[in-house]
Amino acid sequence: MSVLHTAMMEKYKLFLVFFILALAVGFVSIAFVLTWVLHYREGLGWDGEAAEFNWHPLLMVIGLIFLQGIAIVVYRLPWTWKCSKQMMKFIHAGLNILAFILAVISVVAVFDFHNAKNIPNMYSLHSWIVMGVTVYLIPVTSMYIRAALMPLHIYSGLFIFTSVIATALMGITEKLIFTLKDPGYKDSPPEAILVNVLGLLIATFGALVLWIATRPSWKRPREQITQTLRSDSTSPEDIKVGTAISMRSDPESSAETRRRSGKTEESG
Amino acid sequence: MSVLHTAMMEKYKLFLVFFILALAVGFVSIAFVLTWVLHYREGLGWDGEAAEFNWHPLLMVIGLIFLQGIAIVVYRLPWTWKCSKQMMKFIHAGLNILAFILAVISVVAVFDFHNAKNIPNMYSLHSWIVMGVTVYLIPVTSMYIRAALMPLHIYSGLFIFTSVIATALMGITEKLIFTLKDPGYKDSPPEAILVNVLGLLIATFGALVLWIATRPSWKRPREQITQTLRSDSTSPEDIKVGTAISMRSDPESSAETRRRSGKTEESG
Repeated sequence: MSVLHTAMMEKYKLFLVFFILALAVGFVSIAFVLTWVLHYREGLGWDGEAAEFNWHPLLMVIGLIFLQGIAIVVYRLPWTWKCSKQMMKFIHAGLNILAFILAVISVVAVFDFHNAKNIPNMYSLHSWIVMGVTVYLIPVTSMYIRAALMPLHIYSGLFIFTSVIATALMGITEKLIFTLKDPGYKDSPPEAILVNVLGLLIATFGALVLWIATRPSWKRPREQITQTLRSDSTSPEDIKVGTAISMRSDPESSAETRRRSGKTEESG
Repeated sequence: MSVLHTAMMEKYKLFLVFFILALAVGFVSIAFVLTWVLHYREGLGWDGEAAEFNWHPLLMVIGLIFLQGIAIVVYRLPWTWKCSKQMMKFIHAGLNILAFILAVISVVAVFDFHNAKNIPNMYSLHSWIVMGVTVYLIPVTSMYIRAALMPLHIYSGLFIFTSVIATALMGITEKLIFTLKDPGYKDSPPEAILVNVLGLLIATFGALVLWIATRPSWKRPREQITQTLRSDSTSPEDIKVGTAISMRSDPESSAETRRRSGKTEESG
């Protein structure tokens, strides 16, 4: 039992390392994009000028990259496994809806800026991919059918997230080429270095989220098992331990589960 | 048994649809990149001029995108399951090595072109990501340790493949901005449309390969099961059917397996 316990703690720690790393890289990315638009570019505004465009990279990094990334891995947080699946679904959907709202504002900013400046919309590969992902999103199947199509839902989510990362990298490339003149992009001024690093951070964040999301052993246990976790009547020996559950079995959090399980949560 | 058989055939057909779709999108991508460099650009050459640069997109699409994509899904082809795992590993590694050689030639072409033209190397985000992936590849762990780290090997492969797709999209964006003048990229001339579509095809090919590679039910069965498939002594009832094996159990290919299993293959 003690060897097993040590192995479980190791697995839990490894998950935490990856999760904290993803959070850190995400926050540093947001700091980098803020530095870019506030220090090197024209700041933020809603005036049909460059300051309006600048909402685009900022809100995309916060919304479709950071919030969507967190939404993807939110089921993996071991301390949420005592919450009902229903509640976790609301958090997952809520984060995605928030990301989507920020993305809409961010797209409006670009169109408004283009129209004010008489720049054509939607000609670049970057915008074509944005459009592809949007069209893919539009036939919003009802949640009930989506549940039946869970593998497709999971894949679509990861696909959209990956497309967003790729599109961000293209958008960054475009913006650097268009805006850096004298010194140009190819002279590697500090702004170019900062934004190249931003691109690497975004790619790293994406890789961490996809890694966390695809480890089977870090999956939230099935609902029957979490219900067992939530009821007082079980001793650790009663639980049929699968790989998915093993991470939750360390005494500290088991004790917490028992303490919390006083409040009954609806499991939907 | 008949209902089960129908279900298996359906699954097999579905796999074939995805695989043929991936092949078709891959071939059309290669046709598009050829049209780009031969019809719209300066053709192919090794003269330090633009025709030398043009090897870069062509060889990358053929190598790191198409061949690497096929290498990723080569274990999924049901008609290879009667071959030994060892042989499939050679094919998988061989395709990747070929892709790598084409990529090296392709990178040499760009450096040679940049140096001849006095354009700095490695300043763009595109090239930084290329460098990141390369550094990631350099500490080539021995195959034996890699086998122990199989989940990491699989993830690294999918990560590199995804990075290559993202990097291709950025490279395409750069090239269109740099080379289209009067009419420019934003005037959407036919070349811009063609190459935007090329970007979408590349993204679609990537999505299809990743979808095929991540369906558990399309996995190659474990070696013990393929050995069973290769030996004459089994009737279908003898085989412990798991989800992974079910696709192989249609009578036509079982018969083929029995016929072929006369030649003994070493399973390494």
